[in-house]
Amino acid sequence: MPPPASAPSVAPRDPTRVVVEGVRPEIDAGRFPAKSSLGEAVEVEADVFTDGHDLVAAAVWVRPPGDAPTIEVPMAALVNDRFAGSFTVDRLGRWAFTVVGWLDRFSTWSQGTAKKIEVDMDVAVELQIGSDLVAAAAARAKGPDADLLAAAAARLTEGHSADLADPDVAVAMRRWASREPLVRYGRTLEINVERERARHGAWYEFFPRSASPDPARHGTLADATRRLDYVAGMGFDIVYLPPIHPVGRSFRKGPNNSVEAAPGDTGSPWGIGSEEGGHTAVHPELGTFDDFAAFVDRARELDLEVALDIAFQCAPDHPWVTEHPEWFTHRPDGTIQYAENPPKKYQDIYPIDFESENWEELWDALADVVRFWIDKGVSVFRVDNPHTKPFRFWEWLITTIHAEHPEAIFLSEAFTRPKVMYQLAKVGFSQSYTYFAWRQEAWELREYLTELTTPPVVDFFRPNAWPNTPDILTEQLQHGGRPVFLQRLVLAATLSANYGVYGPAFELVEHRAVAPGSEEYLDSEKYQQRHWDLDAPHSLRDLVARVNDIRRSHPALLQDRTLRFHRTDNQQLLCYSKTHPSGDIIVVVVNVDGEQRQAGFVDLDLESLGLEADSRYEVRDLLGATTYQWAGARNFVELDPHSLPAHIFAIAPRVDDDRA
Amino acid sequence: MPPPASAPSVAPRDPTRVVVEGVRPEIDAGRFPAKSSLGEAVEVEADVFTDGHDLVAAAVWVRPPGDAPTIEVPMAALVNDRFAGSFTVDRLGRWAFTVVGWLDRFSTWSQGTAKKIEVDMDVAVELQIGSDLVAAAAARAKGPDADLLAAAAARLTEGHSADLADPDVAVAMRRWASREPLVRYGRTLEINVERERARHGAWYEFFPRSASPDPARHGTLADATRRLDYVAGMGFDIVYLPPIHPVGRSFRKGPNNSVEAAPGDTGSPWGIGSEEGGHTAVHPELGTFDDFAAFVDRARELDLEVALDIAFQCAPDHPWVTEHPEWFTHRPDGTIQYAENPPKKYQDIYPIDFESENWEELWDALADVVRFWIDKGVSVFRVDNPHTKPFRFWEWLITTIHAEHPEAIFLSEAFTRPKVMYQLAKVGFSQSYTYFAWRQEAWELREYLTELTTPPVVDFFRPNAWPNTPDILTEQLQHGGRPVFLQRLVLAATLSANYGVYGPAFELVEHRAVAPGSEEYLDSEKYQQRHWDLDAPHSLRDLVARVNDIRRSHPALLQDRTLRFHRTDNQQLLCYSKTHPSGDIIVVVVNVDGEQRQAGFVDLDLESLGLEADSRYEVRDLLGATTYQWAGARNFVELDPHSLPAHIFAIAPRVDDDRA
Repeated sequence: MPPPASAPSVAPRDPTRVVVEGVRPEIDAGRFPAKSSLGEAVEVEADVFTDGHDLVAAAVWVRPPGDAPTIEVPMAALVNDRFAGSFTVDRLGRWAFTVVGWLDRFSTWSQGTAKKIEVDMDVAVELQIGSDLVAAAAARAKGPDADLLAAAAARLTEGHSADLADPDVAVAMRRWASREPLVRYGRTLEINVERERARHGAWYEFFPRSASPDPARHGTLADATRRLDYVAGMGFDIVYLPPIHPVGRSFRKGPNNSVEAAPGDTGSPWGIGSEEGGHTAVHPELGTFDDFAAFVDRARELDLEVALDIAFQCAPDHPWVTEHPEWFTHRPDGTIQYAENPPKKYQDIYPIDFESENWEELWDALADVVRFWIDKGVSVFRVDNPHTKPFRFWEWLITTIHAEHPEAIFLSEAFTRPKVMYQLAKVGFSQSYTYFAWRQEAWELREYLTELTTPPVVDFFRPNAWPNTPDILTEQLQHGGRPVFLQRLVLAATLSANYGVYGPAFELVEHRAVAPGSEEYLDSEKYQQRHWDLDAPHSLRDLVARVNDIRRSHPALLQDRTLRFHRTDNQQLLCYSKTHPSGDIIVVVVNVDGEQRQAGFVDLDLESLGLEADSRYEVRDLLGATTYQWAGARNFVELDPHSLPAHIFAIAPRVDDDRA
Repeated sequence: MPPPASAPSVAPRDPTRVVVEGVRPEIDAGRFPAKSSLGEAVEVEADVFTDGHDLVAAAVWVRPPGDAPTIEVPMAALVNDRFAGSFTVDRLGRWAFTVVGWLDRFSTWSQGTAKKIEVDMDVAVELQIGSDLVAAAAARAKGPDADLLAAAAARLTEGHSADLADPDVAVAMRRWASREPLVRYGRTLEINVERERARHGAWYEFFPRSASPDPARHGTLADATRRLDYVAGMGFDIVYLPPIHPVGRSFRKGPNNSVEAAPGDTGSPWGIGSEEGGHTAVHPELGTFDDFAAFVDRARELDLEVALDIAFQCAPDHPWVTEHPEWFTHRPDGTIQYAENPPKKYQDIYPIDFESENWEELWDALADVVRFWIDKGVSVFRVDNPHTKPFRFWEWLITTIHAEHPEAIFLSEAFTRPKVMYQLAKVGFSQSYTYFAWRQEAWELREYLTELTTPPVVDFFRPNAWPNTPDILTEQLQHGGRPVFLQRLVLAATLSANYGVYGPAFELVEHRAVAPGSEEYLDSEKYQQRHWDLDAPHSLRDLVARVNDIRRSHPALLQDRTLRFHRTDNQQLLCYSKTHPSGDIIVVVVNVDGEQRQAGFVDLDLESLGLEADSRYEVRDLLGATTYQWAGARNFVELDPHSLPAHIFAIAPRVDDDRA
C-alpha cells in the first residue's frame, strides 16, 4: 500500500492577495468537461476577492478549439464577491477556459478619493497618488491611450480631479494598468461544444418490422421510408430505429418474450448477429444498404435526422463469437457466459467481455461500428444499456469519435442508479434517458427537474424525457387513457428540451400490458411485428403535431437552463416556466390528476419572468387557443383532463401596458 | 495572455472499471486541509461504483503525521453507491488520506451463486469458478490464511457450496484476493488535527485595565490574576485579554472614542506601541512580564487557558515605525498612511503594508511576535481583523507556527463578507467569529447554523458564537434586558461548541449604548477603565456557571457536527438537538421572543435522536431542574422569558421502557 503523498504542511510564502475560487461550470474539479452547444452563451462565474477594502477585477481567458487565438472575456461583479462573464461558443469541440483576478488599484483609488471629495477632505496628496498610477499605465500604453493617460496624469498632478470619473480614462486604465501580481485560478476547465441538436430535439421511435401496410408481411426499410411523411407530419426532429441488424437464431425469443420461438417468429432486434452478419450488416428481412440509404435520404428531405441503436452485445450466431471468441467470457466448462439475472436467463445474448485480454482490439472494433454507420449518414446514436459497459470505454469511444466527427450525438439509455447515470453523462454522452416516466406527482416532477436543471447537473447532463419506450409502459399509462397520455406528452415536451415517444404505440394510446404489475407491452414489437392503424380516430397525432409546432416556434422550450417552478395552491397543479433572452416567455400549467378537474391559483414568480410585480399581461394558450388577461402574480386556472389537461401559455405584456 | 493549457481531448484507453469520486471531507478539490481535533472520528465518504452488477469494495488509506505507518480503513456501503469509513485521529498535525476502490469479484461470485442455489439452478460450473478465485488468493496468502483458502478451494472444486457463506473465508478473501486493477481517487486530501480545545471551549474576555478593586486606579495584571477565581467560578475554559502592550500616545483617543485624549486618558489597547515597546512588550501600567507569568500560572492552576490578542497594526509611536519605516505605506508627501474609512480617520493606527518591498522580513517579524508569546506560555490567540491582511500571509503564518507548535489555536475576529470569513478558516484559522450576534429570529438561527454545521462548511469552519463583544452591543441586548441576555447565553453556549462573552459587561447585563443606532458601549472599556460591581444582585453569574457546567457534563454540546433542528408550530420557538456516540442526547428549546410567553408543540425527529417512533422518554431540564415525561415526536412546551427563556433537556429512555 503506497502511502498517500501530500503537499508540504508549511504553506509557501506568497505575497499575492487575490483569491479566485468557486469557478463554474466545473465538473468534479475539472476531471470532465462541461457541456454546451453551438450558439449557446456559456456563463462563467467565480468568487474573486481580496483582503481589506481594495477592489478587484476579473476576466475569463478562453481558448476555442483548433488554432483560434485565446480571448479575454471581462467579468462583472454580481453580489457577495461573485463575478460573472459570458461568451458565445461558435465552434464545435473542446473549449478551454480559466479565470484570472487582480487588484484594481485604479478603481480603488478613484472611488476612495471620490468619497473624500464628497466630504470635502483635502485630496491633494491623493491626486498625486492617482497621477502616479496613471503615469505608470501611460508608460506601458500604446497608441492614443498613451497620450490620453499621460495628459490625465499631468492634470491630476496639477490638482484637477475631473479625470477620476472620466470613462475614457477608466477604459484606458483597465487596458493598461498593471495587473501584477495576477492571480490565476488553479485549474484549466473545459467545455465540450456539440451541435444544436444535442441541446434540443423531439424523438420518434418506431419499429420498421411493423411498418408494412400488409399485416401479414414483415415490414421493410422501404416501408419505413414511406412512413417518414407521417413522422415528419407530427413535427418530430429525429426518427430513431431499434437495431436493424440480422437477428440471431439460437435461443431466439418468441412473442411476449416466450422462451422458445416458433418457426417464423422474428425474435428481438437486440439479439444481434447471425450468419448474415453482425453490427455492420442490415437484417435481410428489412432490406439492403441501398434501402437504408434511401431511408436516410428521404428523412433528410423531410428535415428528419436518423438515429440508430448501438447495442454492444451479441447473439450466439454473431460472427464475432467465432471470429473473436476471446471477446466473450468463457466458463470452466468451455461454454460462453450468456446474460442472466437469476432466475432469468438470456441465452439469446452474449455480453461482451470488456476485460478481455484482447481488449484494445475489441475497443477498436466497437469504434469501427460507430464509424461504419457515420459513413452511412447517421450521426445520432441511442446507446443501449451503456451502464453495463465500462465508463472509461465510453469516455474513450465518445472522445475518439468526437475528435473525428464532432457532430456525433450519443444518447445514453441507462435506467439505473443516479450516480451511474450521471457518470455516463460526465464521460461524454450528449443526452441521457431519465426517471421522467416514473415521476408522476407534481412534487416529484418539481424536485427531479429542479435537480436536473440546476448546477452542477445541468452543466453535464442533458435530460431526454420519454413518456413511454418499448420497455416502459408505466402503470399510469396502462390505466390513465387519453388524459394521461396527453398530460405526459405536454410534460415531456415542455419540461425537457429533448424528449421522445415510442410510436405508433404512443399516439395510438396503446396501453395493454403483458401482465398485471408488468411494464412490458402486450404483444410487444420487441418480439413480433405489429400492425398499427395510423388513422384510428382516437389517434393523438394532431395534438402531438401541435405540441411539436409550439416547441419549434418557442426558443424558450428548446433549452433547459431557465426552467423555474412556480407555486400553486393545489398539489395536483404543476406550474413552471421557461424563458429565452429573445423575450420568449412560456408558462405551463398541468393538471397531473388524470381523472378529476382541478382548479386553483398559481403564484408566478414574476421577477424570474422579467415582469414587474404589478404587471398586466396577456396569456395566450397555445394548446387550447384561448387568451386570458392576467394581472400580478396570483391568477386562477382550471383544467379538465378530459378536454385538455394543460395550458401552454405564451406571455406577452398587455398592449395597454407601458412597456408594450 | 498565455493560453489556458488543457488535457488532450481524446481520453486515454484505460481498462479500469471502478469509479471513485465525491470524496469528503474535501475542501476546494483538496486545496485546503479539512479540520479535526484529537480524539475525533473522521468520517470519510465516497461514491464508489462500477458498470454492470459487479460488487465493489473500498477503503481509506490514511497516513498519520510524522513517521507512523500508513493504515487501511475499510469502508462500508451506505445507500446509493455511497461508502463510508471512519478513523480516530490521535496525533496533532497534518494527516493525509485518499480512497481506493476495486472490484470485489469474490463477493460478486458468492452472492450470485447463492442466488442461483436458492432457485435450485445447477451451480457446478459456478463452484469451479469460485474455486479458481479462492485458489488464486490462496497462492498469494501468507500464514494460516493460505491453508484455509487452499482447503476452501478444494472443497468448492468437489462441489461443496458451504464455503460460500463462511465468514472466515470472506475475511481471508478480503485480505488476499487480487484487487487489480485498483482504482485510486485522483487526489490526496489532508486533515489538520488540532487539540481538543480547538473543538470546544467557553471563552471569557475582560479588560485588565478595569480589574482594579479601586475605581480610581488603573487595573493591573496582578488585579487580573486575582479576578481569575471569579472567572473560573463561572466555569469558563479560556480567559482572553485584549492587547496588553504599551498604548501609543500620538493621536490617542479619549473616552467614548473622542478624537482628543485628555492627560490621564488611557487610550485604546489596540493602539499598540510606544517608546516602552511594541508587540513584545507589556504595558507598564499593567505590570511586568513577571506579573504576566503569574497570571498564566494562576490561570493554569484554575484549569483556565490564557488567550491573547494579536492585532497586527501599530500606533505612530511603535518602535517599528522608526526601525522599519518600509513596513508602512508612505504617501507622496512623506507622511505614513493612517487607517481611514472616509470621513472617519484613525490617526492613532498605522496599518502594516503587507506589500512592502521588505515583506519577507516583515512576515518573519510578525511570526516572531507569535513565537514570543508562545514562549511566555500562551497558545491561544484571538486575531484582530485578520481580513485586512493577506490570506496567504495567514496561511503561511499559521502553518509555520503549527509546524513548530501544533498546539497553537487561532481565532479569527473577522466580521465581514461570508466568502472572506470562510477563506480565513480555509487558510488555517482554528475558529472564527460568526454572524451569531445578529441572527435573532428562529428561522435565521436555523438557516445560519445549518449552513455552519453541514458540509462543506463544517469541515473547515469552527464557529465561535459571541452574544456580545467590546465592539458589539446589539440593539436586541440594548433593549431586551435579562430575558434576552439569558436567551442569547443559552443559544450561544448550546448551538456552538465554542462560544464566549465579553464580561463583566455580559453577566452584569450592561446595555447602555453610546448613541442611538450605535452598537458601541457607552463609556466603553476600549477607551477608558471601568469599575464593575461583580456582586450586583442582578448578575447572571450563577446562571452562566450553570450553563457552563451543563456543557462540561454533556459531550453532545462539545461538538457541532450533530446539530439538528426540529420543527415547532410556533415561530418564536426554536428547537434543536445535539447527540454524542456515548448516548448523550441534548434537546434545547428556546423562546426567541424576549418579552412574551410562548407555547406550542415541538415535533422531534426521533430517528435523528436514536429513539423509536413510539418511544416514551424522560426529558430532564438541566437549566430549570424540572423533569417531564414525553412520548412520541410531538410534545408541548411553554416558556416565559421572564422566568427562564429556554429548556436544556437531557433525554433518557423511560425506566419502564424496554430499552431502558
